[in-house]
Amino acid sequence: MSMLRRRMRVAIIGCGVIGRSWAVVFARAGAEVRLYDQNGDAAQRAPAVIAETLRGQGMKAAEVRAIEAALLPVDSLAEALGGAQYAQESIAETVAAKRAIFEQMDAVAPRECILASSCSSIPPAEFLGGLAGEWRSLIAHPFNPPHLIPLVELVPAPGTAEKVVARARRLLAGFGQHPVLLHKPVEGFIGNRLQAAVVSEIMHLIGEGVASPADIDACLRLGLGLRWAMMGPLETMDLNADGGIADYIGKFGKDYQALSRKLGIAEPWREEAVAAAIESRRAALPIAALRKRMGWRDRNLLRLRQLLEAPARR
Amino acid sequence: MSMLRRRMRVAIIGCGVIGRSWAVVFARAGAEVRLYDQNGDAAQRAPAVIAETLRGQGMKAAEVRAIEAALLPVDSLAEALGGAQYAQESIAETVAAKRAIFEQMDAVAPRECILASSCSSIPPAEFLGGLAGEWRSLIAHPFNPPHLIPLVELVPAPGTAEKVVARARRLLAGFGQHPVLLHKPVEGFIGNRLQAAVVSEIMHLIGEGVASPADIDACLRLGLGLRWAMMGPLETMDLNADGGIADYIGKFGKDYQALSRKLGIAEPWREEAVAAAIESRRAALPIAALRKRMGWRDRNLLRLRQLLEAPARR
Repeated sequence: MSMLRRRMRVAIIGCGVIGRSWAVVFARAGAEVRLYDQNGDAAQRAPAVIAETLRGQGMKAAEVRAIEAALLPVDSLAEALGGAQYAQESIAETVAAKRAIFEQMDAVAPRECILASSCSSIPPAEFLGGLAGEWRSLIAHPFNPPHLIPLVELVPAPGTAEKVVARARRLLAGFGQHPVLLHKPVEGFIGNRLQAAVVSEIMHLIGEGVASPADIDACLRLGLGLRWAMMGPLETMDLNADGGIADYIGKFGKDYQALSRKLGIAEPWREEAVAAAIESRRAALPIAALRKRMGWRDRNLLRLRQLLEAPARR
Repeated sequence: MSMLRRRMRVAIIGCGVIGRSWAVVFARAGAEVRLYDQNGDAAQRAPAVIAETLRGQGMKAAEVRAIEAALLPVDSLAEALGGAQYAQESIAETVAAKRAIFEQMDAVAPRECILASSCSSIPPAEFLGGLAGEWRSLIAHPFNPPHLIPLVELVPAPGTAEKVVARARRLLAGFGQHPVLLHKPVEGFIGNRLQAAVVSEIMHLIGEGVASPADIDACLRLGLGLRWAMMGPLETMDLNADGGIADYIGKFGKDYQALSRKLGIAEPWREEAVAAAIESRRAALPIAALRKRMGWRDRNLLRLRQLLEAPARR
């Protein structure tokens, strides 16, 4: 990590699989990480479990030791949050449990501390709404495991201050994650909605006997997934036609929408959505640079296949 | 490629982007590749265009020369198909054009030659049905570009012989591709249906103002795509719960289906589809091996991120 925190202090609230992986995100970037868990000795055991996991992933012994040294298990929320600039909660996914822990966190955390929840499925208003510190609270939903998958969905509560959202976004980006911002707390947020669309269509295809489950899984892995690991679907379309995404949608947009109707997705693409998608791609990459980026895509595809097909990695 | 063809002869019919990339698939594995195109000098120009593309992708000069040497542009279908064991057609995507070229190919190709079409959107019965050589004809739909993306969807016509399907599958696998078999010619086949589901939901989310197009694209790339490049969605679920996919679906299956209904996909997952998905995963990986495979996933995720984040590859 290039921009080392000056011993920023982060509190991990809940030391299960997700909390432990979050601890690695902060510790490897040089933060002091305090670990707290309401249950038994989960926090005390966490550093050893984390070290074992990282060694299993091939991390060098010296790096593992440095991370372990940055982790401090504590016995109370007050100790965890004392002097902290950021707290990441990853406890049970129920409104009652989340509400209770946020009230306690809010009572003891210093005023400048952001309170973030790993919540994946509860609308933020349901457990953050009306909290005294709602203004400094929000959802920061990771993908599993966060120290390997950089995506974090930021979902503000109705009363979250815009400044706090902006600060959380900068802070997480500084720790090497990739935060995205949801302007509305749609059910499932974004990643899980897209995942649900794919998994439900897969179940439909299996149910119809279209192909074997293994063959259907391979269509994602060896077809779409190789591209989407390096480009989202919008960039994928952008690089699949000489005139970019506008050209691609002009040629195939109707076919996609006809197919989507077969899947049950009846809503046509709105003109303003298509326009926004095109505008976003052109802001990211001028048409004149398309061909060069296609070369980047192809070279990376080649490297990706070599990496994934190397026998030692199977 | 470990299993070198003994100068197997392959015919490329149509030398556009897809046909040229197919030529690389066969030539790099040692086949003799004859190139034919109905239009002007497209076949004559193809070897130089292919060589330039491969050099741009960083292939070594000696390998490029070996591939170029395996390519032979010809001026007639009869020359292209003489002595060929396999023909891959990649011409314009219209029923009339496909039907006409298949009739001509069928008239001159030796009896043992498989006739395959790169067709992406026409049901095979519409241009192969009733052809004298329907029994040896089928769709072999690639993803672009086939020499970098291994997935090939095999879609037999009603009259395609099972032996031919099995032989095409073996043959393409021998050339390093990954063929999957569709038992029914559903609209869009598999890959494009899954792609349509994702793109339509992306357009919906943009239209609703849920997040910026760039942020939504990042959700695929930095969340789901990193996993799907190495595991299909079924294997992803399998490795996301201690008890495998059955455990995962038990915990989250209802949530996924509720989300899918929000997207317009009203059909519930059929019990037999879920059972088939679970059975397929258990046949691929016993529960006792799950933990080890999770380690493989995590080590590969780490390598994948290092690869994709290396500045030189941006």
